[in-house]
Amino acid sequence: THNYRITLLPGDGIGPEIMAVAVDVLKVVGKKFDIQFEFQEALIGGAAIDATGEPLPGSSLDTCRNSDAVLLAAIGGYKWDSLASHLRPEAGLLGLRAGLGLFANLRPAKILPQLIDASSLKREVVEGVDILVVRELTGGIYFGKPKGIFETETGEKRGVNTMAYTESEIERIGRVAFEAAQKRRGKLCSVDKANVLEVSQLWRDRITKLAQEYPDVELSHMYVDNAAMQLLRAPKQFDTIVTGNLFGDILSDAAAMLTGSIGMLPSASLGASNPGVFEPVHGSAPDIAGQDKANPLAQVLSAAMMLRYGLNESTAADHIEQGVLEVLQRGDRTGDIISPDMNLLGCRAMGQALIQVL
Amino acid sequence: THNYRITLLPGDGIGPEIMAVAVDVLKVVGKKFDIQFEFQEALIGGAAIDATGEPLPGSSLDTCRNSDAVLLAAIGGYKWDSLASHLRPEAGLLGLRAGLGLFANLRPAKILPQLIDASSLKREVVEGVDILVVRELTGGIYFGKPKGIFETETGEKRGVNTMAYTESEIERIGRVAFEAAQKRRGKLCSVDKANVLEVSQLWRDRITKLAQEYPDVELSHMYVDNAAMQLLRAPKQFDTIVTGNLFGDILSDAAAMLTGSIGMLPSASLGASNPGVFEPVHGSAPDIAGQDKANPLAQVLSAAMMLRYGLNESTAADHIEQGVLEVLQRGDRTGDIISPDMNLLGCRAMGQALIQVL
Ligand SMILES: CC(C)[C@H](C(=O)O)[C@@H](O)C(=O)O
Ligand SMILES: CC(C)[C@H](C(=O)O)[C@@H](O)C(=O)O
Repeated sequence: THNYRITLLPGDGIGPEIMAVAVDVLKVVGKKFDIQFEFQEALIGGAAIDATGEPLPGSSLDTCRNSDAVLLAAIGGYKWDSLASHLRPEAGLLGLRAGLGLFANLRPAKILPQLIDASSLKREVVEGVDILVVRELTGGIYFGKPKGIFETETGEKRGVNTMAYTESEIERIGRVAFEAAQKRRGKLCSVDKANVLEVSQLWRDRITKLAQEYPDVELSHMYVDNAAMQLLRAPKQFDTIVTGNLFGDILSDAAAMLTGSIGMLPSASLGASNPGVFEPVHGSAPDIAGQDKANPLAQVLSAAMMLRYGLNESTAADHIEQGVLEVLQRGDRTGDIISPDMNLLGCRAMGQALIQVL
Repeated sequence: THNYRITLLPGDGIGPEIMAVAVDVLKVVGKKFDIQFEFQEALIGGAAIDATGEPLPGSSLDTCRNSDAVLLAAIGGYKWDSLASHLRPEAGLLGLRAGLGLFANLRPAKILPQLIDASSLKREVVEGVDILVVRELTGGIYFGKPKGIFETETGEKRGVNTMAYTESEIERIGRVAFEAAQKRRGKLCSVDKANVLEVSQLWRDRITKLAQEYPDVELSHMYVDNAAMQLLRAPKQFDTIVTGNLFGDILSDAAAMLTGSIGMLPSASLGASNPGVFEPVHGSAPDIAGQDKANPLAQVLSAAMMLRYGLNESTAADHIEQGVLEVLQRGDRTGDIISPDMNLLGCRAMGQALIQVL
C-alpha cells in the first residue's frame, strides 16, 4: 500500500462542491490501486479571510508543506473584491506559489473529440489541438521589485511594477519545459517580447543556450503578440510553449479557451522540493456556487494530474482520465458543456456517473 | 483646395510596393475631392539602417514633424534580426512613437462580411464583430526605467524592465478612449491586471474616476487573461477596449486575427500636437517582398484613416473605404485572402482594380 497525505484547499464559490467530487473519486481509485489517502483540509482565499482575516494563514501554508501534494479548488468572489490587494483572495494564491516555491506551472490545453463543438473555433482549426503551456510562476512582473504606487516630483501618483528574470530562474523553468517537450512531440516554442524588452532578450539567450543540452527538442522563438495571433489562427502548430509569468497567464488562458470548455482543464504547479499544487484552470464561479450546477471534471482531472506529477501514480491517473472520457462518451454533461441530445447532470450526479464508470 | 504635406515611410519588405498603391489611390481621391497632397519620403527601419546605420535618422524624424501626417508601411526583416536591439528596425518604430509623442494607438478590428470565412472562428461567433482597441503607446513597460541587463551580487545576469504609468498618462489615453466610445456604441472595457499589479490598480482607479465625466459611456473592467479568453469566446461583447502598451500589443493582435485577414487592417497613432502616423497592422512580410503578391488594402485603408483622423477629410476617407468594399464585392482578392471562385490578383493589379472602382 502507498500512503499519501493530501492537503485539500476547497477555497471559495463552487470550490467545496467540486472538491467533494474529486475526493470521492480519489477514494474509489485508491481502493482499486491500493493507494491510501489521508486528507487534511486547510483554508485559503475568501474562506480564509472570513475566518482569520488573512487570505493564506501561516497554518495553511504549514499544512501544505507537511503533505505529499496539495489539491486546490478555486478562490475569489465579488464579496472580497473591494479589499486592499494584499488582503484579497488572490494574494493567498500568490502567497501559496511563493511559499511553496512553485516555479513551474503546467497548463495543458487538449481538445477532447467529444467536446470539439464547444469551441468557438472551426472544427478543422482545433481538431487535434494538444498544447502544454509551461508558465514560470514565482518570478517576473508578479513578484519583481520595486512595485507599488509612488508619488512623483510633480505630486502625481505613479504605479510601478518590475518585470525581472535572472539567468538561473530562466534556466530552471527552461529545463522543465525542455523535459516536458521531450516526453511530448519534441517541439518547444519559447514566447517573449525580445524585440522590445531586455528581460526577454536575456530570456531568449538563456533558452537558446539551454537548447544545446536538448538536441532532440526542436526550439523556436515567438513574440508574445504573434503567439496570441497564432494560437487563434493555427493552434495545431504548437506542442509545448514556455514563457514567463505574465505572458503565461495570458496565453495559457487563451489556449484553454480554444477548447471551448475551460470547465474541463486541470493544471499543476511544481517546485523543486515542496509538494506540488494541483487545481482547475477555471475560477470559483460565485454566481452558481451552492447550486449543484458546477462541472467537477476539471477538479477531478486535477486530482489525476496530482497522481501523475505529484505522486508518480500514473496508472491511477490514466484510469481517472479514461473514466472522464467514458462519461463524456456516454453523453453525460454539466450545464457549461451541454449540447443538444446530451444528458444534463448536476455536479453531484456527474460525480456519481464518473464513479460508476470507474 | 486643401493642401497637405504627407511624409511617406515605405520601410522594408513589401513596404515600398504597398505604399506605391496607397499613393496612387490618394492621388485619385485627391483629384476627386479637390485635395492636394505633397509627398515627401523618408527612411526608417532596415532601409534606414542600410543607408545610414541608424533605424531612425534624425532627418527622418524632422521630415515627419514637418508634415501634416505620416503614412508608414512596414519595417523589419530577417536581415537585421541579429543586430543589437537599439540598432534594429523596431527601435526606429519605437523612436518614431516617442519622438512624435504618439500616445494613442487606435486599432480597429472589424469583420468584413465578404471575408468572414477567412476567420478561424465560427461564423456565428465573429459575424458583426466591430472592436476598437485603444492602446497606450508611449508609456508602460515599453519605455519604463530602469531597464537593461544587470549583474546581480552573485555574478549572474538579471534582465529588468519597468511597467509604470502616471495618473496623467492614464488620464490622457483614457480620454481618447471615452471619446472614441462615445462616437461608437458607447461601451468601453478597460483591461488591466489589477488583481496582481499595482500599476494596474492605479490604472483602474484613474479610469473609474474619469468615467464620471462621460456618463453616456458604459465602463467595465476586465483582467487581461480573461480579456484574451473573451476575445476568443465571445468577441461581440466588446465595443471599445482601452489598455496599456503591452496588453494592447497582445490584445490588438488577437482582435485583429479574429477577422482572419490581418492584411486588411489599418491603424492610427496619434499624439497631442505632432502629426499622426498611419500604418497597416501587418508586418513587412520579407518572404514575399518584391514579388507583387502583397495585399495593399491595409495600406490603402491606413491612408483612409489618415484622411479621417489626421486630416479631417472624412468624405474622402469614406470614399476609399467604400471602394475597398466594392472591390471585395466584385470578388477581387490577393493571395492572403483568396478563396474558391474569387479572382486572384497581385499587389499592383489590386491597386488598379481599386482605382477603377474609385
Ligand atoms: C487569480 C490570479 C492571481 C491568477 C494569476 O494571474 O496567476 C490566475 O489568473 C491564474 O492564472 O492562476
Ligand atoms: C514591432 C514592435 C516593436 C511593435 C510593438 O510591439 O509595439 C509591433 O508589434 C506593433 O504592435 O506595432
